[in-house]
Amino acid sequence: MTELRIAIIGAGMMGADHVVRIENRIVGARVTAIVEPDESRAHAALKDAPEAVWYPNIDAAIAAKAMDAVLIATPGQFHEPVLLPALAAGLPILCEKPLTPDPESSLRIVNAEVATGQHLIQVGFMRRFDAGYMELRELITSGDQGELLGLHCAHRNPAVPDTYTNDMLIFDSVVHEIDVVRFLTDSPIKSIQVRQMKRNSLNPERLNDPILALLETESGVLASVEMNVSVQFGYQVKTEAVFERGIAEIGRTAGMTRFFDAKVANTEHTSFKTRFAGAYDSQIQRWVNAVKRGTIDGPSAWDGYLAAAAVEAGLKARANGETVPVSYVAKPSFYN
Amino acid sequence: MTELRIAIIGAGMMGADHVVRIENRIVGARVTAIVEPDESRAHAALKDAPEAVWYPNIDAAIAAKAMDAVLIATPGQFHEPVLLPALAAGLPILCEKPLTPDPESSLRIVNAEVATGQHLIQVGFMRRFDAGYMELRELITSGDQGELLGLHCAHRNPAVPDTYTNDMLIFDSVVHEIDVVRFLTDSPIKSIQVRQMKRNSLNPERLNDPILALLETESGVLASVEMNVSVQFGYQVKTEAVFERGIAEIGRTAGMTRFFDAKVANTEHTSFKTRFAGAYDSQIQRWVNAVKRGTIDGPSAWDGYLAAAAVEAGLKARANGETVPVSYVAKPSFYN
Amino acid sequence: MTELRIAIIGAGMMGADHVVRIENRIVGARVTAIVEPDESRAHAALKDAPEAVWYPNIDAAIAAKAMDAVLIATPGQFHEPVLLPALAAGLPILCEKPLTPDPESSLRIVNAEVATGQHLIQVGFMRRFDAGYMELRELITSGDQGELLGLHCAHRNPAVPDTYTNDMLIFDSVVHEIDVVRFLTDSPIKSIQVRQMKRNSLNPERLNDPILALLETESGVLASVEMNVSVQFGYQVKTEAVFERGIAEIGRTAGMTRFFDAKVANTEHTSFKTRFAGAYDSQIQRWVNAVKRGTIDGPSAWDGYLAAAAVEAGLKARANGETVPVSYVAKPSFYN
Amino acid sequence: MTELRIAIIGAGMMGADHVVRIENRIVGARVTAIVEPDESRAHAALKDAPEAVWYPNIDAAIAAKAMDAVLIATPGQFHEPVLLPALAAGLPILCEKPLTPDPESSLRIVNAEVATGQHLIQVGFMRRFDAGYMELRELITSGDQGELLGLHCAHRNPAVPDTYTNDMLIFDSVVHEIDVVRFLTDSPIKSIQVRQMKRNSLNPERLNDPILALLETESGVLASVEMNVSVQFGYQVKTEAVFERGIAEIGRTAGMTRFFDAKVANTEHTSFKTRFAGAYDSQIQRWVNAVKRGTIDGPSAWDGYLAAAAVEAGLKARANGETVPVSYVAKPSFYN
Repeated sequence: MTELRIAIIGAGMMGADHVVRIENRIVGARVTAIVEPDESRAHAALKDAPEAVWYPNIDAAIAAKAMDAVLIATPGQFHEPVLLPALAAGLPILCEKPLTPDPESSLRIVNAEVATGQHLIQVGFMRRFDAGYMELRELITSGDQGELLGLHCAHRNPAVPDTYTNDMLIFDSVVHEIDVVRFLTDSPIKSIQVRQMKRNSLNPERLNDPILALLETESGVLASVEMNVSVQFGYQVKTEAVFERGIAEIGRTAGMTRFFDAKVANTEHTSFKTRFAGAYDSQIQRWVNAVKRGTIDGPSAWDGYLAAAAVEAGLKARANGETVPVSYVAKPSFYN
Repeated sequence: MTELRIAIIGAGMMGADHVVRIENRIVGARVTAIVEPDESRAHAALKDAPEAVWYPNIDAAIAAKAMDAVLIATPGQFHEPVLLPALAAGLPILCEKPLTPDPESSLRIVNAEVATGQHLIQVGFMRRFDAGYMELRELITSGDQGELLGLHCAHRNPAVPDTYTNDMLIFDSVVHEIDVVRFLTDSPIKSIQVRQMKRNSLNPERLNDPILALLETESGVLASVEMNVSVQFGYQVKTEAVFERGIAEIGRTAGMTRFFDAKVANTEHTSFKTRFAGAYDSQIQRWVNAVKRGTIDGPSAWDGYLAAAAVEAGLKARANGETVPVSYVAKPSFYN
Repeated sequence: MTELRIAIIGAGMMGADHVVRIENRIVGARVTAIVEPDESRAHAALKDAPEAVWYPNIDAAIAAKAMDAVLIATPGQFHEPVLLPALAAGLPILCEKPLTPDPESSLRIVNAEVATGQHLIQVGFMRRFDAGYMELRELITSGDQGELLGLHCAHRNPAVPDTYTNDMLIFDSVVHEIDVVRFLTDSPIKSIQVRQMKRNSLNPERLNDPILALLETESGVLASVEMNVSVQFGYQVKTEAVFERGIAEIGRTAGMTRFFDAKVANTEHTSFKTRFAGAYDSQIQRWVNAVKRGTIDGPSAWDGYLAAAAVEAGLKARANGETVPVSYVAKPSFYN
Repeated sequence: MTELRIAIIGAGMMGADHVVRIENRIVGARVTAIVEPDESRAHAALKDAPEAVWYPNIDAAIAAKAMDAVLIATPGQFHEPVLLPALAAGLPILCEKPLTPDPESSLRIVNAEVATGQHLIQVGFMRRFDAGYMELRELITSGDQGELLGLHCAHRNPAVPDTYTNDMLIFDSVVHEIDVVRFLTDSPIKSIQVRQMKRNSLNPERLNDPILALLETESGVLASVEMNVSVQFGYQVKTEAVFERGIAEIGRTAGMTRFFDAKVANTEHTSFKTRFAGAYDSQIQRWVNAVKRGTIDGPSAWDGYLAAAAVEAGLKARANGETVPVSYVAKPSFYN
C-alpha cells in the first residue's frame, strides 16, 4: 500500500481540519471519502480533498470499499454506530475522544474489538503526541529524578461557547487530564474528587467554573487539576510533576520575547489549534505509519474505556464533593 | 526615644540570628537584653551585642527595665509564659510564629491583649514582608485582574531534620501558608482538607511526605498547598494566583542565568535563610519603626489565633482525610 | 504533477539527511535520483529512497530525465558545475549555502539564471524558515515597535571539527548571520568589521575564536555578531533586535523546565540538527510546494551573490581589523 | 565612634536621596551637615535630617568640625574644589561619579590622596554593589567556566531629559560600563571604539542615539556596549559574559509574573532608582562600615582616574569612529 486511503467521518470543524491536515501535511495518506449526512457540509470539505467522494453514511462507504482506514470526527454520541460497522469491516480506526460517552458503551466497543482479534482502534487523545508531555514521560520513565509522587495540572481556556455546561467541565475538558495522568503514570485512575474554586463572576450564572479536581491513580500518584475554562488571558495547558528528587514543568509559553511598554513578555496561545498543532499532526502521521504496519501507535480502546469510567465517577464527584472511586472491569489480556 | 532597646527572648538559632540582624542591619534599635536560661548560649549571643545584659528570665529583665520592646524567639510552647508578663508590663512584642501551639492558649493571649487596650503583639509571619507576597497582594487589592478565585501554593524543602514529624507538616510548615492565604485574601480559613501524595521513599518510614492541603476561605477562595519537605532539589516557596482575568505567579528563582553544560540554569535557594533574608530584615525594621510610633505593622495576635485554629483543624484533617471546618470565636472589635 | 521527483546531488551527511526528510516528512515529493560519484555512498543513501536511481553525475541524470527538480548538497566549491547544467535544463534548484564560494562565480550563476528568464534557484539559507526568525521579521515589518535600529546576534557551537579554519568563521558561520541580517532588514550589507575577542585557550592554537563581527546594512542598521564556535555549553543561535520602542529576542531555549540539584534549568540544543530541524523541514516543504506552482519560496541566487560579496569583505576584514566596504553589482531588475 | 557623622555636599536630587537613605536605612551613621550654597535647597534637605546643620561651603563645615566623613553629590565639575580641602582635612570621602570630568584633574586628586598616605577616597560607581554584578564577578573569579573572553553590555533608558547631549552618552552613561568592565576583568581599558547604530527618529535631531561602543581591556577581553538612552520600554541594564566554557547573564527582570491579555509578562524597571536601589544602600552601608575601620570598601580614586582616561578616549572615538587607545600614567604603588 503506497498511500493510505482515509475516510473522514463527520465534516464539522474537527473533520474539516483533519481533511486539510491529511491532504497538506501528512505523508503517505490521502482522503478518499467524506462520510457526512449533511450534503452541503460534505461539499465544503470536498473542496480540500479533490480525490474524495461523498458518502451519506458509513455503510455506503464500506460497501464502496472507499477507504483503507477510518477517522471518526463526529460528536461522541455518534461514535458507536460508526465504530461497530467499521470494526466489523476490519478497518483501522482513529476515533476522536471520547471513545463513547459512557463506560457501558465503551465496554461494548472494547469487547467488539477484542472479538476481532486485531488492534484496530486508536483514540484521539492527541496530548500524548505533544512534545512536552512526551519529554515529561521520558523523564518519569528514566527514573532520573526518582519516582513520580504527584502532578499539578492546569487547563485554562480564554472562554467557552454558550453551549458549554458544567458537565462538560468533566467529560469534555477534565477527560484530557484523565488520559494524560494515565499516560504519564501508566496506571488507571482509582478515585476522583472535585472541589469548587470561587466562581468566576464573569461567567453565565449556570456555569460553576473554575474547579479543582483531584485524581488518584492505582499507583498512588495524586494529581490536582485546575480546570478553568474562562480565565480570559489565554489558552494554557501545563503540568508540574513532583518527583522524589525534584520537579519538572511543561507547558510554559515559548517563542519570541518582547521588551515593550515596561514589560518583558512572551505571547501565550489563545486556542488549542496553535497550542497542539504539532500534536495533531504528529498523532495522525504516526497513526498512518502504524496502520500501514498493521498496528496502532497511541491510546487504545481500553484507554478510551478507562477514561469513560473516570469521567462517570467525576460527574458524580462534581455533584457530591466526595472522593468517588472509579469502577472498571478487569483488563482483557488482549490489551497487555 | 532615639534607639529602641530590644530584649531577645531565647538565644537559640533564631534568637541569635535576630541579634546579628538588629545590631548590624536595623536602624534605630539595639539589643540591650538577652533572656535565656542557658548561660552559655546567652554568652555566645552577647558576643554579637556588646551592650546587652544577660537575664535568666523575663521577670528579671522587666524588673531591671532592661528594654523598651521584646522579641520572642523561643519554641512555641514557651511563648505564653513570656507573652503574659510582657503584656502586663505594657511592652510591645514581636513573637515568632506560632503565637502559641493551640487555639485555646492563643485565645487567652488575644483576651489579655484586648484587656490592655493597646496593640502590643505582632506575630512573626515574615512572609508578609517578602517582596513577592506584597506584590501579589497589591495586584489582588487593585482588582486589575478581577477577583481572586484560587491559589496554588508549593513549599518545598530540600530535607528536614530527624526530629521532624508528620504533625509538623501542619503546625510548622502549612501554618505559613495558612497565614499567607489569610494575608492574600483578607479572609479567615473556613475549612481544611489534607490529601496524601505518593510517599517519598527516600524519607524515613514514619514520614508521610508530601501532602496536598486544600484550604477554603470564608470568602470562597480555594487554595491548594503542596507541602513537600524532602524534595531535595532546593528550598522553593511559590504561589500561583488564579483570577477572573488571568494568573499571577511569585517565587520563581531570580538572579544570574548560567549557560553551561547543555543547560540554561538559574540557581535555586537551598534554605529559608537566603530565600527570606529580605523579609526578615524588613519585618524587624518595620516593627521597630512602628513600635516607635506606638503601634504594630504586621500580623496581630488575632492572626496568630486564627492560624492556631486552622492548624488544629488541619491536624484533624490529616488524620481523617475529610474536609474539616475551622472553628473560631467572633472577632473582637478591638482588631477591626 | 502529483509528486515532485527530486534528484539529490551529493550523498554526504547533508544529502543523506535530505533523502530521509523528503521520503518521510515532505508531502508531495519523492527522491528519484541520487547523483554521487562515490558509488558506496550512493548505495547507502539509496536504502532510504527505494524508488531512486543512482547516477554518477548530473549530466547522466538530466539525460535520463530522472527528476523534476534538483537539490544540491555537495560542498560549495562543487556547486557551479551542477548549477549551470541544471539551469540549462530548466530545472528548479534548491542549492545548499553557499551558492558558490566567491562573488565572481556567484555572479556567473546570477547571470545564467537571468538568461533563462525563470526563477529557478533557491539558496538553502534555512534560518529564514525558522519560526523565531519569521516571528521577528513580522514584528519588524509590522512597525509595532518603531523602526529597527540594531541587532545583536550570537552563534555558539559546542565545538568544531579539526578541519575548521579561521576563514570558516566567516564563510561557513558568519555567512548565516549575513543572510539573516539581510532577511530581517531587507537591505544589503554595506560594510563589515571583525574584532577579535579574547582567544579561547581550549582551542588549537591556529584557531582565533571567538570573534565579534559588525555588519552595517545600506539602511543603517548595525548588527553585532558574536561568532563563537567552541563555547562548549551547547548550540545556541539567538538574535536580539533593538527597535525605536523596545527590544525583541529570539532563540532562547524552550521545552521542559527541570528543578533539580539546586538549579532551575532548561536543556539547550547541542546541534543544529535539533535547533533547526523544523526550519529544514519547512524550507523543503515550501520549496516543493513553490516548485509545483512554478516559482521559488525563499532566498534567491541574488541573495546568494550578496552573501558571497559580504563574505569576501569579511575575510579581508578579519585580516586587517578595519571596516571593509562590501562591493556588489547593481541588482538586475529580474530580482525585483 | 558609635555613629559616623556625615556631611552631604550638594543637596540636589542625589544628595537629598542620600540624606533620606542615611537617616532611614543605614546603620551606624547620621547626617550632621548639609553643605549647599543654595539656602532653600539646603533647608528642604534639612527636613529629613533633623540633627544636621547647614553650611554654605565645605570650609565652613570643616572649620566647625561638623562631620567625620564627606559624601559628595554635586555635579562632577564641582568635585575637585571639595575633594582637595576634604583630603587636606584628612576626611574620608565618598565621591559620586565622575571623580572629576577629565583625566588631568583626576590625576591631581590621585596625587593629592597619595600625598596624604591614607586611602580616603571611594568613588560612587554603585554598580559594583549590585547583587548581579557581584555574582557575575564571583563566577569570573572562580574560574568555573574557564577564562572570561568577552562581554556584551546593554544600558537602556526609557528616555533622557532635554539637556542630555551626545557627549553625555560617553561621560555620563558609558562611563558606568567602563568601570563595570574594569571591575569584572580587573584590568584597565586599553582602547575604545564607538559605532553608530541607526538613529532613533523619535529623538531630537541633535541626539545620535543609540551607539555601540567596543571596549578592549589590557587583558584582551572585548566588551560590546549598547548605549541606548531612549528606547522607551524601560530601564534595563544587563550584561552577558562569554567564557571559555559557557555564558552567564545578569540583569533580566525578576519578580511576579503576570499571565494576562494573551501574554506572560514580567514588569521591567523604568528608573535607576528601583533598578539599583539595593546597590545604593549597600554601597553606603559598606562605606560607613569601612570608614569606621579606617579604610574604604569600593572603587578608589585610581579607578576614578582610569574611568576619566577611558572617557576621554571614548569622546574622541565617538567623533572619529576609530579604535582609540586609552592613555594613563603608571599605577602608583599606593593603590596596589
